[in-house]
Amino acid sequence: MNRSILLKERPAGKPVLDNFELRQEEIPTINEGEILLKTLYVSVDPYLRGRMRDEKSYIDPFKLNEPLESGVIAEVTESRNPNFRKGDYVSGMLQWKEYQVTNGNGLNKVNKEQAPLTAHLGILGLTGITAYLGLEKIGNLKPGETLLVSGAAGAVGSVVGQIGKIKGCRVVGIAGTDEKISWTIEKLNFDDGINYRTSENLRKSIANACPNGVDVYFDNVGGEVLDAALANINKFGRIINCGAISLYNETEIPVGPRPEGILIKKSALMQGFIVRDYVKEFGPAINQLSKWFQEDKLKYSETLIEGFENIPQAFLDLFEGKNQGKMVVKV
Amino acid sequence: MNRSILLKERPAGKPVLDNFELRQEEIPTINEGEILLKTLYVSVDPYLRGRMRDEKSYIDPFKLNEPLESGVIAEVTESRNPNFRKGDYVSGMLQWKEYQVTNGNGLNKVNKEQAPLTAHLGILGLTGITAYLGLEKIGNLKPGETLLVSGAAGAVGSVVGQIGKIKGCRVVGIAGTDEKISWTIEKLNFDDGINYRTSENLRKSIANACPNGVDVYFDNVGGEVLDAALANINKFGRIINCGAISLYNETEIPVGPRPEGILIKKSALMQGFIVRDYVKEFGPAINQLSKWFQEDKLKYSETLIEGFENIPQAFLDLFEGKNQGKMVVKV
Repeated sequence: MNRSILLKERPAGKPVLDNFELRQEEIPTINEGEILLKTLYVSVDPYLRGRMRDEKSYIDPFKLNEPLESGVIAEVTESRNPNFRKGDYVSGMLQWKEYQVTNGNGLNKVNKEQAPLTAHLGILGLTGITAYLGLEKIGNLKPGETLLVSGAAGAVGSVVGQIGKIKGCRVVGIAGTDEKISWTIEKLNFDDGINYRTSENLRKSIANACPNGVDVYFDNVGGEVLDAALANINKFGRIINCGAISLYNETEIPVGPRPEGILIKKSALMQGFIVRDYVKEFGPAINQLSKWFQEDKLKYSETLIEGFENIPQAFLDLFEGKNQGKMVVKV
Repeated sequence: MNRSILLKERPAGKPVLDNFELRQEEIPTINEGEILLKTLYVSVDPYLRGRMRDEKSYIDPFKLNEPLESGVIAEVTESRNPNFRKGDYVSGMLQWKEYQVTNGNGLNKVNKEQAPLTAHLGILGLTGITAYLGLEKIGNLKPGETLLVSGAAGAVGSVVGQIGKIKGCRVVGIAGTDEKISWTIEKLNFDDGINYRTSENLRKSIANACPNGVDVYFDNVGGEVLDAALANINKFGRIINCGAISLYNETEIPVGPRPEGILIKKSALMQGFIVRDYVKEFGPAINQLSKWFQEDKLKYSETLIEGFENIPQAFLDLFEGKNQGKMVVKV
């Protein structure tokens, strides 16, 4: 038998397990030109929350009573497509199903010898590419500058900070536990870190950790952490608005201090970044990330959850900050 | 006798006449290398409010009990400097004094034949340059795009919209009276306009006036007008944060809807713009503005207040929107 996970109802505020449904179905059969895929690893990511809303955005919303989808690593178990052979490993945007049929469009073959399979969901996948292109397209890092990153121990943030170090910057991370901060400093070579949950005054904590101010802030969380970063931004500072996980479960647009005064005063920039806008540059980005990875300049961590049926719980855990590095479900 | 206007005390919130003091003093005499200037026209501008605060910013704060300064057109009445002759007209950042002595550094000679003298405070001066370089450096207007501008009948906004028309854009202005809107449409060739004081729902009014959304928003006011513009921003939209007159008299940072969600969703950009960052490009900017002006592609209006002693009142009137085009005091 086959299993799939469907969106039963759209979450109101914070998602809960009841929003999802596990369905049993037949394992499908393939026609000429198609392949049968067995799902091995499933990526869960904060941005998926946005697709659960019924509103127009940069990517179509999930449909009710249909399987969700995200980045997946799968194995080809049958092929009637000359481009794929049984035993190939592929990555791509695929449905939350144990087995599924596709014509192979949009899939990339992955080489098991080059890096662990799950690296293609994280550091060599969409999250690594997001970190790299966000910094390239908006950050414009210069050696000696100070880079601040939130969600520092997360899938994107942990790569952002390491690229900052490669570029010769002072890197300060913001995360929600002391363990995460220690990991970014001891294993990833960040210069300093701030636990936003225990900081009494985040604005001052950032000022202390960034004595020369903040030149580039890579924001994965939004909200009050962004406010505190903006209060420390330097002249000509750049803020990459890559994520706003602190706001994803809000039902109305939350209010906060208006940014326009400080943006003007500092000639600073805030720019939204969506990696899908730069699909044509994914190839060069993966090449650069792979090179750094093989040179041992990029390390990664992942939080591996076992069991297909646990995909929804793994997704919910993202909003509790339970992951260190990429959150991946092993099927 | 000579008169000067000093900052007697820093305004708390909205400035009042009592914050200023008129002082009588001797007309100064000049030494070798110096010139004596007689002030003819004084520019008053919203950004001066920021310099009245005792805080670090992109330009030093005014000192208490010393004369304020702004853009001024003056006539050389005596010269012991070989670069200037009696009868020359100059523009520059000068003190609020009827007569003053300088060594001529930072002054530009202006040609009375080329354009009316006050044009060098407005359309061919810092406000025209602000409009031009703000659009050049951040706006990146493309023909057929929609340009929205607030403070549309103000010194900067009225030039912004006209440049938008020159560039082949749909231009929509936001201002505070129907007379101002009519002026921008009938005299400046704007496509449409919105009176923000009488609009019942500014967000919807913008949506109606910009059926293809807003590609570039040139913001001179900040606050709720900015919120409404941001709610209508297009994918890859650009917001030029040039001014925030609605916030200048606030004593604490006001709150409003957080922008990061929409910035991400639309891959949009908000960037603070300070014209002084681009001093090296003032020359080419003035050349382009002069060319358009001589080709009759740029029109301007000014609100002329008479009397040196009325400079403070003219400044206060800016916050009531009493000016159409550049606010200038004729001494």
